[in-house]
Amino acid sequence: MISARSTTPDADADDDLRDDHFRDACGVFGVYDHPEAANLVYLGLYALQHRGQESAGIVSVEDRILHVNRGRGLVADVFKRQDLARLRGRQAVGHVRYSTSGGSASQRNLQPLVADTADGGIAIAHNGNLVNGVQMRRDLERRGSIFQSTMDTEVIVHLTALSRRQSFYERLTEALFQVRGAYALVAMNERRLIGVRDPHGIRPLVLGRLDNNGWVLSSETCALDLIGARFERDVEPGEMVTIGPDGLLSRYPFPRKKRRLCIFEYIYFARPDSAIDGVNVYEARKRIGVNLAREHPVEADVVVPVPDSGVPAALGFAQASGIPFELGIIRNHYVGRTFIEPQQSIRHFGVKIKLNSPPGFFAGKRVVLVDDSVVRGTTSRKIVKMVRAAGASEVHLRISSPPTAHPCFYGIDTPNQQELLAANNSVAQMCAYMEATSLAFISLDGLYRSVHGVSEGYCDACFSGSYPIPTTRMEKEDTRLTLLQES
Amino acid sequence: MISARSTTPDADADDDLRDDHFRDACGVFGVYDHPEAANLVYLGLYALQHRGQESAGIVSVEDRILHVNRGRGLVADVFKRQDLARLRGRQAVGHVRYSTSGGSASQRNLQPLVADTADGGIAIAHNGNLVNGVQMRRDLERRGSIFQSTMDTEVIVHLTALSRRQSFYERLTEALFQVRGAYALVAMNERRLIGVRDPHGIRPLVLGRLDNNGWVLSSETCALDLIGARFERDVEPGEMVTIGPDGLLSRYPFPRKKRRLCIFEYIYFARPDSAIDGVNVYEARKRIGVNLAREHPVEADVVVPVPDSGVPAALGFAQASGIPFELGIIRNHYVGRTFIEPQQSIRHFGVKIKLNSPPGFFAGKRVVLVDDSVVRGTTSRKIVKMVRAAGASEVHLRISSPPTAHPCFYGIDTPNQQELLAANNSVAQMCAYMEATSLAFISLDGLYRSVHGVSEGYCDACFSGSYPIPTTRMEKEDTRLTLLQES
Amino acid sequence: MISARSTTPDADADDDLRDDHFRDACGVFGVYDHPEAANLVYLGLYALQHRGQESAGIVSVEDRILHVNRGRGLVADVFKRQDLARLRGRQAVGHVRYSTSGGSASQRNLQPLVADTADGGIAIAHNGNLVNGVQMRRDLERRGSIFQSTMDTEVIVHLTALSRRQSFYERLTEALFQVRGAYALVAMNERRLIGVRDPHGIRPLVLGRLDNNGWVLSSETCALDLIGARFERDVEPGEMVTIGPDGLLSRYPFPRKKRRLCIFEYIYFARPDSAIDGVNVYEARKRIGVNLAREHPVEADVVVPVPDSGVPAALGFAQASGIPFELGIIRNHYVGRTFIEPQQSIRHFGVKIKLNSPPGFFAGKRVVLVDDSVVRGTTSRKIVKMVRAAGASEVHLRISSPPTAHPCFYGIDTPNQQELLAANNSVAQMCAYMEATSLAFISLDGLYRSVHGVSEGYCDACFSGSYPIPTTRMEKEDTRLTLLQES
Amino acid sequence: MISARSTTPDADADDDLRDDHFRDACGVFGVYDHPEAANLVYLGLYALQHRGQESAGIVSVEDRILHVNRGRGLVADVFKRQDLARLRGRQAVGHVRYSTSGGSASQRNLQPLVADTADGGIAIAHNGNLVNGVQMRRDLERRGSIFQSTMDTEVIVHLTALSRRQSFYERLTEALFQVRGAYALVAMNERRLIGVRDPHGIRPLVLGRLDNNGWVLSSETCALDLIGARFERDVEPGEMVTIGPDGLLSRYPFPRKKRRLCIFEYIYFARPDSAIDGVNVYEARKRIGVNLAREHPVEADVVVPVPDSGVPAALGFAQASGIPFELGIIRNHYVGRTFIEPQQSIRHFGVKIKLNSPPGFFAGKRVVLVDDSVVRGTTSRKIVKMVRAAGASEVHLRISSPPTAHPCFYGIDTPNQQELLAANNSVAQMCAYMEATSLAFISLDGLYRSVHGVSEGYCDACFSGSYPIPTTRMEKEDTRLTLLQES
Repeated sequence: MISARSTTPDADADDDLRDDHFRDACGVFGVYDHPEAANLVYLGLYALQHRGQESAGIVSVEDRILHVNRGRGLVADVFKRQDLARLRGRQAVGHVRYSTSGGSASQRNLQPLVADTADGGIAIAHNGNLVNGVQMRRDLERRGSIFQSTMDTEVIVHLTALSRRQSFYERLTEALFQVRGAYALVAMNERRLIGVRDPHGIRPLVLGRLDNNGWVLSSETCALDLIGARFERDVEPGEMVTIGPDGLLSRYPFPRKKRRLCIFEYIYFARPDSAIDGVNVYEARKRIGVNLAREHPVEADVVVPVPDSGVPAALGFAQASGIPFELGIIRNHYVGRTFIEPQQSIRHFGVKIKLNSPPGFFAGKRVVLVDDSVVRGTTSRKIVKMVRAAGASEVHLRISSPPTAHPCFYGIDTPNQQELLAANNSVAQMCAYMEATSLAFISLDGLYRSVHGVSEGYCDACFSGSYPIPTTRMEKEDTRLTLLQES
Repeated sequence: MISARSTTPDADADDDLRDDHFRDACGVFGVYDHPEAANLVYLGLYALQHRGQESAGIVSVEDRILHVNRGRGLVADVFKRQDLARLRGRQAVGHVRYSTSGGSASQRNLQPLVADTADGGIAIAHNGNLVNGVQMRRDLERRGSIFQSTMDTEVIVHLTALSRRQSFYERLTEALFQVRGAYALVAMNERRLIGVRDPHGIRPLVLGRLDNNGWVLSSETCALDLIGARFERDVEPGEMVTIGPDGLLSRYPFPRKKRRLCIFEYIYFARPDSAIDGVNVYEARKRIGVNLAREHPVEADVVVPVPDSGVPAALGFAQASGIPFELGIIRNHYVGRTFIEPQQSIRHFGVKIKLNSPPGFFAGKRVVLVDDSVVRGTTSRKIVKMVRAAGASEVHLRISSPPTAHPCFYGIDTPNQQELLAANNSVAQMCAYMEATSLAFISLDGLYRSVHGVSEGYCDACFSGSYPIPTTRMEKEDTRLTLLQES
Repeated sequence: MISARSTTPDADADDDLRDDHFRDACGVFGVYDHPEAANLVYLGLYALQHRGQESAGIVSVEDRILHVNRGRGLVADVFKRQDLARLRGRQAVGHVRYSTSGGSASQRNLQPLVADTADGGIAIAHNGNLVNGVQMRRDLERRGSIFQSTMDTEVIVHLTALSRRQSFYERLTEALFQVRGAYALVAMNERRLIGVRDPHGIRPLVLGRLDNNGWVLSSETCALDLIGARFERDVEPGEMVTIGPDGLLSRYPFPRKKRRLCIFEYIYFARPDSAIDGVNVYEARKRIGVNLAREHPVEADVVVPVPDSGVPAALGFAQASGIPFELGIIRNHYVGRTFIEPQQSIRHFGVKIKLNSPPGFFAGKRVVLVDDSVVRGTTSRKIVKMVRAAGASEVHLRISSPPTAHPCFYGIDTPNQQELLAANNSVAQMCAYMEATSLAFISLDGLYRSVHGVSEGYCDACFSGSYPIPTTRMEKEDTRLTLLQES
Repeated sequence: MISARSTTPDADADDDLRDDHFRDACGVFGVYDHPEAANLVYLGLYALQHRGQESAGIVSVEDRILHVNRGRGLVADVFKRQDLARLRGRQAVGHVRYSTSGGSASQRNLQPLVADTADGGIAIAHNGNLVNGVQMRRDLERRGSIFQSTMDTEVIVHLTALSRRQSFYERLTEALFQVRGAYALVAMNERRLIGVRDPHGIRPLVLGRLDNNGWVLSSETCALDLIGARFERDVEPGEMVTIGPDGLLSRYPFPRKKRRLCIFEYIYFARPDSAIDGVNVYEARKRIGVNLAREHPVEADVVVPVPDSGVPAALGFAQASGIPFELGIIRNHYVGRTFIEPQQSIRHFGVKIKLNSPPGFFAGKRVVLVDDSVVRGTTSRKIVKMVRAAGASEVHLRISSPPTAHPCFYGIDTPNQQELLAANNSVAQMCAYMEATSLAFISLDGLYRSVHGVSEGYCDACFSGSYPIPTTRMEKEDTRLTLLQES
């Protein structure tokens, strides 16, 4: 039924350059009451760039006019100085979206979404995914609503526009009552900024304060640091904060649910200089490394991380095990999305375009290699191969997450289940595939111990298959299909 | 209420370079059942480029997927070879839109409009303007419809999506029953191409046939010529033609109205190599020149057109008067929209950037200068000045249209009434303003005699103030406001 | 020996869109002593755009610093507002270069050429071609000079740099003594502007005066008109004018030769609103039409020009013959270099993308079709075909130049001799090829009578094969080869 | 005398974003005898990107034709797939150039330089700087040579072109005999690839071997790793290797000098996964850290590097001192050159756009902060401030290089002496300026001990002021001037 789309370029599948990671879907950011609201959002998106590299957008509001600037590419590419100058007003929201391999495929799917409603313009930025999005879309289309994008966020926009309630927050609330799924939203009309997190709090959202008493909403705390905003508190699961001329109002409109923060934020998604729901990410990763060393000790000469994401866990592993930590794999940070892989005989240079080791570094060494996760296993296999080719006598691969055997339906871009190495292979089989001397994953228990900062629960569905939001088989298929169509 | 818009650059008012003309709003084109439908639409839009230079778009359909490509700029700039290659399918519709001075202001206002409806994707390309568009939009927004553009065409799209009727043509018909105004539409769903002209037939639309028995819809016949299509007939006022697997069906769903084709098509909008409603444009313009010579004879040495639009009337004037025709004003065709006017002391080079005369050409001559219309009068004044400065002893300005004293509400970009020179000045005053020796306009009668090819009526509201579609004062203000906001 | 070149795209041969004309190589322009020198040059190049559409460049000088801006494309595309702002100084020279079909092939071949010499920076803009350029280049390379472009203009730059003379004009003179060929040069160092025309005066150059007593050099007078400069006089064949703080100095450093202005300037190259060596181009073209009518009369119903270049001659033909002039062929001025010809089954739409006729215009008419020249004959043939297909009963083709049977070695881009239709065919054969009812060319005598304004001689080598500059066979081959390599 | 240059944008001085580092001038790479020579060079330049981010270029040769592609920007931005496809041939050389803040200033200064000489095309890529370059340029200009760039490399090109010797290597040798300075060159004519290092071997160059027995020349070994080439050996100081159909010939044409490799390669320039003249860079940096800990021990809770360049030394420091190593400062790798610093009240976000720390990380900690060098000291000061603001009780700054008190004349972009903090301040003063608890630099002796791998000497002029190449005061001023003019 999703029949209109922009023309798509030929797939440019580039296995060696593709990161074998789960990818976070988005980052959101909002500012209320600052003379340079859009500039602050720009900086905020910069700090959240790791949460989405496909596209970026900012919407500001001034005198009831929404100013919109959205485009494909990195934050620094999308906004020119004059663009920022035109995004006038004291309120603004922004969004970064994840990177797909495609080219211009998703020209329609830029956020924040904007709509003229009978009650004025609104803008919504969404991190997450609705499990009943496709069904709701079909219903809305049958009622005559017209969709411009293939993003399920637009369902929320339509439901808000259709609501007969008086105020913006009531209409948004009515809309959210009709959807199920994961969302951290930053929304705005001409007078108010709203932040809301789904009842389970699957995706993170924090609240900050500016020097001038203005307010900030952000996916992560690291973006508050950059703009010099004070961390106020996390927006709670199921909480809706409405910020307006009359200050901040906190509401809990939805039936209370158990907190289920995505635990993968601690493993890979969030920046190590952020704290999520009160837990310091860098420290959590280090503790995972410590617990990994305790659960799966090994005699070795050196602990080497797969940079950059494996570094904190490797440090923890090294500290707990007493084996020296070394940066034996160097990452070339100039490798970006525009790299052209030469097409002919020389194309199989593997991971070397990104990773290399100092001459002689691995010769004769027993190596503990620490990486954050194994998805398809393709990259890990190449890295083990490279380390072996460099002379390592043993390569013990230690992974700072449990095996990822189940896809995500809540806003993370994961391969289909059949592509997940852990879904179809035992650890021994995986070890053999990767040609590692040994392979071990942190246990789910060990992971929980590592993020002990808070007593509440997490979503660990990608490891356990235990999905916190009841979802029909059809909804799961819809979600996978939508994700595939977009990429 | 139209509160969301893209950021706008500073106005780049460039009086010397701005054409002092009414500007046609759009051109539309559609192809049914050809293996290279989009390529044919591309060529068709090329031939209709004079009807709109701001933006261009093509939508094709294949296997229930709409492929969309729209952008700002000329047809040749918007579409690259690979874009055309991706616009697959045997059906396609296209649109060109008028030129505004603004920069990126109207990124949202690109046609053809596309929507996913419960019944599949539809695409609509519209030439014209709805007088109750703003009111309908307000109503629809109150019902929860979300608008993406500021174009009244989107009202038709929403009404179509909201209709509960079964088939596409029924839903479109139900939508059109609710609007008043001028429209020549080319619309398409995954299986059918529809052409429809408003009950008065204010804007033109023709039907053509391809060699392979495929069908073409076009604003003008010149575009049929380019692609080698056979002119079949004009779509009639109030007629809806539906072209599908079962051939062409003609319906007249609306109450019959008197035909009221925009007479300005013959004066300026249409290309001289087109025929509109059976009347050859080039011949009509020449006959206007003949009648102008008869109505306002003058003794002179030479008849000179203001190129390019004044040429046919000048030829007619010369033939009727026996005064020699000369191309005494040369137009520089390289002057385009990207020209940068140097900013400082030398900026007042007037119309010379576009128009110049051979050395000594006008010296001592009594000149009949033939132009097609006077809008603000600014350009005409400069041309008269240039001709006088070149030595002309007398400059008799002859205009191949009656004085334009009233704005258009049916899809033509005209200045506000107070800016129309003829709205506030007698012919004598206008003559004095332009510093011409004499000034004369073709009479409305003379104009009618010149386009005698058919017996039906025309819309001459811009001359007579007699508007064929009943329009409230509020609607008129709405229309003007909308046009101003977009530009 | 010309071994280094930028990478070349695949030829994009597009026969239908390629103009079948000789193409002028260049236009030059210079300003001395004006606070906005570069802005004036920008406008001047705009007016000379018809002389070269491939690339454009401006060099200004201020405080001994040369500011350079050159690029591929039309004047309006190459220079942005900020570019002009940076071209500071009271002296500037500019250049437009002819259009080739290639893409980025000629990135190196941009003018004005600039060089740092021991005596400071110099800039040279050149219209013309040196017949001993390749040989001089080989000699200079053997001496150790390094060439950056493949343009023979660079030979003049090197010879100037190598000269041991004191002053700029002496060094340039010494350089020019060593070359043979056609040149109209505008050159500049940090204090002086020099204009020079080769001893035969093959290419034109005029001198103008600004209101502030500043000076202008230009290929044609039309560019003086645009900037409001006063036409002072033509630079004479063999004259070198040096303009500096001490005013203008005229020198005739070379042995006097017979004047041999390229007569094709009157037929096609120059703009009709220019005067070349005292002869008004528009009037000359009209007189050619008059003489063509006298030499080759025909009974017909209508005289129709091939627009735009055939218009003045057609007017003259109509006036002399008494047959009515009509604009029966309409040109689409939006057709530019970026047009993409659809690649598959529909590509053969012939000349219709550029030219079309009003419906029914030609039906049953005996037509005199006036065009300016026949080069390969491909376009003429298609136009005749189109006119016949439109119903003309007779098509009498009248050409306002003699048959072009010989290539040019003096700066005009002509096909090789074997591609020139007139080189290998009688007029009767050509007529048959074009499927015209009759075909006639103006005689060389008639052409001379038409440009009678001055008593001096012309270069008519492309018609007569009589080349004014002695040229060895090797030099001719070199010249052709160079031209081919560049295009 | 360097008077011609392209227009320059306003300086966009952005102190917070500018790296306070010496910057390496260039990287060079060459391939001989491989069917995809240009593709290999592309990959090689990718691996050498850290040596120059301003511009990149590749020249290949095939059938005596040089194919050239050069442009501003990163390797991945300059070359598109089709560009690489056009760089045909089995031989190619490439170059990356350092990053300047300017915009289009250096369009002329792209390498490899290419010239058509009497003996065919040559291409030269140069890492280094000539101390008598300006004087040689003046002499050559006086002889009539024309310069296209402001790079001293062009002096070598001209001298090569002017040489009367027979073979390419003889001509290049004759040219190099006339210059003094630092150079690692990769040069090529249509049949041979030449690598040469100045007599002191100031800049590095290595030789590698391809699987197919083809040859590679590269600034660093890390680029060999990427393309799977085997490291053969370093090119020796003063050695010229000529690779041709007859294999590799090694010559030592210059009088022997003492080896003086730039020791800063080990501190900062080279990638840690390279080995330079037999010394593993990563290990050298770690040993510097070890020696730094021994020379300047301190009681502290944590050793934190300033990423990325400070990491290996910090690791060494931590291992030697027993103080735990932590990645307490996180670098945002998305910060690139296109970042727009918002202009108004919020611009002083300092180094946070690049660097941030995990929440609470530094609270109450005594910190050893390890950085590689102090140039102006501006960035270090901000980092200390940030660490203090994050709660550190003590900040002990340890620098893995001696104080840099003298500018470089051999190809490294250093500020003028007055801008070098160490040139005008004692360590105590520097410590006070940075508001650090303590500040210490590795001693020159300690540095030498750390790179003990080979017995030969180094250039340490930036620390000691002892310049290995005799240079007049005028030459020093010329060099500084040239570097300033370019940037």
